[in-house]
Amino acid sequence: MMSRAGRRPGNPDTREAILSAARTLFAANGFNATSVRQIAAAAGVDPAMIHHYFKSKDQLFLTTIQVGIDIPSKMALVLAGDPEKFGHNLLTTVLEVWDSEDGASLVAAFRSALSDPTTSAMVRDFVTTAVLGTLVGALHLAPDDAPQRAGLIGSQMLGLVVGRYILAIPPLAAMPADKVVAAIAPTIQRYLTGPLGF
Amino acid sequence: MMSRAGRRPGNPDTREAILSAARTLFAANGFNATSVRQIAAAAGVDPAMIHHYFKSKDQLFLTTIQVGIDIPSKMALVLAGDPEKFGHNLLTTVLEVWDSEDGASLVAAFRSALSDPTTSAMVRDFVTTAVLGTLVGALHLAPDDAPQRAGLIGSQMLGLVVGRYILAIPPLAAMPADKVVAAIAPTIQRYLTGPLGF
Repeated sequence: MMSRAGRRPGNPDTREAILSAARTLFAANGFNATSVRQIAAAAGVDPAMIHHYFKSKDQLFLTTIQVGIDIPSKMALVLAGDPEKFGHNLLTTVLEVWDSEDGASLVAAFRSALSDPTTSAMVRDFVTTAVLGTLVGALHLAPDDAPQRAGLIGSQMLGLVVGRYILAIPPLAAMPADKVVAAIAPTIQRYLTGPLGF
Repeated sequence: MMSRAGRRPGNPDTREAILSAARTLFAANGFNATSVRQIAAAAGVDPAMIHHYFKSKDQLFLTTIQVGIDIPSKMALVLAGDPEKFGHNLLTTVLEVWDSEDGASLVAAFRSALSDPTTSAMVRDFVTTAVLGTLVGALHLAPDDAPQRAGLIGSQMLGLVVGRYILAIPPLAAMPADKVVAAIAPTIQRYLTGPLGF
């Protein structure tokens, strides 16, 4: 065990100590029940160090599961656009990220999330709070059906990711990105702003 | 509990006992941690019987998934109906199976399948051939876009299953089955017979 003394910004030990403490606490207690303050205490650093290195609890979590993509800022870009083009923008952004060279780290993280119940629970909490919760909050959905609309959007996006990238089912994996966007964007747009049929 | 005595090649009890033991052990311990020897012991048969009936652990695993879902006869029921009600019928059937008591073992099997690339490949081939291939064959889709339509249907159904049952994301897991059917059926129907936007 290395000494906790003398950690300061720019010290790589500090970053590693935060990551190690975060992995342990997220695994033990889940994403929602783990606070930045708890992680800082376990790592023996000031909470400001966590913001210095990782910006947010969301970003720290993504780093612990080895996803090097800034999902919150990608989502901010999508959500800043015209709500009527949300379906199109969400699909374009998601396909850009997963089709890029960062995609491999997402596939690995997703596989482990699906195979291990502890990681599944962490990812479920993260998706529910940081992804679907952000959607509901940013898009001014009616409170009575907001979670269901967010869940339906999640179902189509999850299936696209699992089918195209995790299982690599041929017709989905081989489909050009612009065709995927054209075919699926109306689904996302209806789940967001259209009639749900009930 | 039936007697273990007198099992021999050609005895249908032997095959069923192996399948039943395999379902239980795969669900409890996952694919990788379950050995042919353990399944044979739980079924009260010689390991050679497993190779006689199923050739390999992989094949036995696929058989347990196939038998659990009973895809061929379930799909035959869905496909025998009015093509304009296909979306509704497919969703109703899939939710019935996964919401039933078979659901728990399907979740465990699905988790194991996605965690391991070799098993993922088996599941991918199975979904491509037995599910999407059957759709394309039975529904007289135009040959130029049939695989893409089948793939799009697969993407929405996969995401529903992963979101509602594997990750158990609250708004999807808690949504009443009739609302899921009402909201998602038009998506499936458009992917099958409607405009794809390209």
